[in-house]
Amino acid sequence: MYDLIIIGMGPGGYEAALTALRKGLNIAIVEKDKLGGNCLNRACIPTKYFRVGAHFIEKIKKSENYGIKINDYNLDYTKAWENKEKAISFLRKSLEQLLLSKKVPVYKGIGKVIDKNKVEVLLNDGRKEIIEGKYIIIATGSYPASVGNLVPDGNYIITTEDYMDKLTSLPESVLVVGAGVAGCELSYIMASYGVNVYIVEMMDRLLPSKIISPEISKYLLRKFKTTNIKTYFNTTIKDFNIKDQKVEVILSNDEKIVVDKILLTIGRKPNTGLMDIIEKDEKGFIKTDSYLRTNFENIYAIGDVVNSPMLAHIASYEAKVALHNITEEEKISVDYSLTPWAIFTAYEIAHIGLNEEEAKEKGIDVESGYYPFSYNEKAIDESEPEGYVRLYFNKENKKVIGADIVGIGASELIHQVAIFIKEGYTAKDIHEFIYFHPSLSEIFAFATYDLAVGKLFR
Amino acid sequence: MYDLIIIGMGPGGYEAALTALRKGLNIAIVEKDKLGGNCLNRACIPTKYFRVGAHFIEKIKKSENYGIKINDYNLDYTKAWENKEKAISFLRKSLEQLLLSKKVPVYKGIGKVIDKNKVEVLLNDGRKEIIEGKYIIIATGSYPASVGNLVPDGNYIITTEDYMDKLTSLPESVLVVGAGVAGCELSYIMASYGVNVYIVEMMDRLLPSKIISPEISKYLLRKFKTTNIKTYFNTTIKDFNIKDQKVEVILSNDEKIVVDKILLTIGRKPNTGLMDIIEKDEKGFIKTDSYLRTNFENIYAIGDVVNSPMLAHIASYEAKVALHNITEEEKISVDYSLTPWAIFTAYEIAHIGLNEEEAKEKGIDVESGYYPFSYNEKAIDESEPEGYVRLYFNKENKKVIGADIVGIGASELIHQVAIFIKEGYTAKDIHEFIYFHPSLSEIFAFATYDLAVGKLFR
Repeated sequence: MYDLIIIGMGPGGYEAALTALRKGLNIAIVEKDKLGGNCLNRACIPTKYFRVGAHFIEKIKKSENYGIKINDYNLDYTKAWENKEKAISFLRKSLEQLLLSKKVPVYKGIGKVIDKNKVEVLLNDGRKEIIEGKYIIIATGSYPASVGNLVPDGNYIITTEDYMDKLTSLPESVLVVGAGVAGCELSYIMASYGVNVYIVEMMDRLLPSKIISPEISKYLLRKFKTTNIKTYFNTTIKDFNIKDQKVEVILSNDEKIVVDKILLTIGRKPNTGLMDIIEKDEKGFIKTDSYLRTNFENIYAIGDVVNSPMLAHIASYEAKVALHNITEEEKISVDYSLTPWAIFTAYEIAHIGLNEEEAKEKGIDVESGYYPFSYNEKAIDESEPEGYVRLYFNKENKKVIGADIVGIGASELIHQVAIFIKEGYTAKDIHEFIYFHPSLSEIFAFATYDLAVGKLFR
Repeated sequence: MYDLIIIGMGPGGYEAALTALRKGLNIAIVEKDKLGGNCLNRACIPTKYFRVGAHFIEKIKKSENYGIKINDYNLDYTKAWENKEKAISFLRKSLEQLLLSKKVPVYKGIGKVIDKNKVEVLLNDGRKEIIEGKYIIIATGSYPASVGNLVPDGNYIITTEDYMDKLTSLPESVLVVGAGVAGCELSYIMASYGVNVYIVEMMDRLLPSKIISPEISKYLLRKFKTTNIKTYFNTTIKDFNIKDQKVEVILSNDEKIVVDKILLTIGRKPNTGLMDIIEKDEKGFIKTDSYLRTNFENIYAIGDVVNSPMLAHIASYEAKVALHNITEEEKISVDYSLTPWAIFTAYEIAHIGLNEEEAKEKGIDVESGYYPFSYNEKAIDESEPEGYVRLYFNKENKKVIGADIVGIGASELIHQVAIFIKEGYTAKDIHEFIYFHPSLSEIFAFATYDLAVGKLFR
């Protein structure tokens, strides 16, 4: 009997494995597909890879600022795709190598919990095997959702996974359904590499989510309007027809768009269909207590299968919490309040804690501090003067409760705010910190100047 | 009588002005040259500007990873120089505009403190004027040092200020005297734009400073060796001759090098010559108490004129401390323990707190946590797998005491460590923080894995 069986080797599963091995546990792994899961193979990592390319294309023009005159260049997305595969496979192989060197058995197949301590593995070669574990972690992730008759066919109607796995060259035009994170990220990538992109969104803005302030949606939309991305809000797809290797789409406003492909980016659903004996909620998420235990107290669930933010780092965080609770007497509960969010589209966008809308809902009186990158010396040095920081404070106790960051470095800078929030910093505390000059981080001192010291203009 | 006279409008002076204005003080400014001081006009800001260009040149090759094939480009340093001037002048004008809109008198000339409350200004137009202030802040900065008979002539032997102000095009070859921060930064810029660079350093390594771990010097040297930078350690200049518009240099090892120019980067000296009535130390730094008060309790000194780290952000920090002490009953003392350092050369390099050598000197038993960027997914996405993080911990109380960071994002990431140190975080605290995936910041979770959870291989 293993100490621990981990089903699913995505970011939750491999963090669990790494931690368990370091704690000296005897583990087994079940994975039906590639190590690294969706995040490494088809989502976070390849998306950010392509985004570096997309952003570099923008920088080609800016390089003239530095006396670098690029007279001739061409774009070859297929090369980008191939190199993306190389980068991913390097990381996947490191993980493989590590598991191999620690002699961890990896059962290649679909794992199904059939008993408190038993996992039945339907191996990819057709055989079945039952393995036993003192503890089990379910980390089987999620799959792309579809809507109505927009059923993915892997060719005309594709998912984000098809995009990453199969789309080795880009078509001329794509209609993206859904302006959420994946929709905005992939639209920017495709547009940068020359695709005409149409985004169709049911709601009235880009990134329609509570955690994204309307201010961000507007700021991003202004940028999209300068690119070959066309947006349709409050719009759905009424009908579509495949004709002459094109997709004719009729929108709810009766406009007709003809594209090569439809890309679905309308969210994901938990991979929990097989887990009969594990209690789930009406959406199919596995029910857990705050220690991440399922209806069996030795079986934990982490990552996209539980109803927490569908983020790779939340899966890893939950892995750490689960491993703590498996190995320590004193249990800890999950706390998602310091979850950083970041989006890599035409701008880098990050958020943490509460924004104004969320704070108001909680009855918190808010004041905010704002500063644009257009006066930040480092951003100017980098020719990246777009974007801003907005820090949110609780008006009553003066403590920082959240932040929105748009622009260069947003996804790294947000971690400073995470610690500020954790430590209960006020605008004054943040203002008085010593930031390197010139740095992007200095923007925090400027975004807090009014609140910490006083306004320059009253 | 003004509430406050600020002499010198560098990063210390303008932070003092901004804070004073926000506090409602009636201020006057004395500045003999350009607003923004050396930092904005001839050091921090233009150096980082050129460094963006230099680094972009490196990225041209890497862009092929993203299917971006740059077939033809050329470098025109003069264009870079002109655009650098534009970026700086935008920032300088913003500052001018701000002072103008707040109706702050700016006395253009050299300020000399002649009495507790009196500053004599030798105006640039030749007139003299005496102004009076309840408080005075001396923030007159520093000037480049010279050594032996290597006296700057603005042509063959130049300072970093000559470099920024006058060198509108680059020569074929330059000998850089001193491998400190400015030497390493400018060498990388020049080499990237095609100059053959020779660095001559008295000491035995690059960046020979207590705060820079030998590990960093070695890492950087390996990189320099792949470029057109040639280094000479434990070497000085024995003699030099100007002949046929070239400089023939004889090194202490009797090797002869012929270059177009010699660039001196051997440190800076405080601009305090005129301050007769203000007490100075043997090196010319103004003596202050921990509140930054000089021998007159209403006269403060900040920035390069006092014997604290010669960094723009330390000048601004001191400005804030001085303004606090000027306006508040309860005084605060300066504390430099959380000073972030960053260097922009062939790698971005950052440091905070204590490294192993410094800790040992203080009798602190150290353990460290290390992780290379070569396994950080975001760094791989960015094609920037070089560099590493090393975090230093006090073995006794387990708290983090310092960090070295080499590689992408170092100058921003270092601020997270600043807060970790301030809050007394252990490796476990740092490891358990939720970092966005994929982010560079995640490297902190991996650099603390061994210490927080246990080793993977024993």
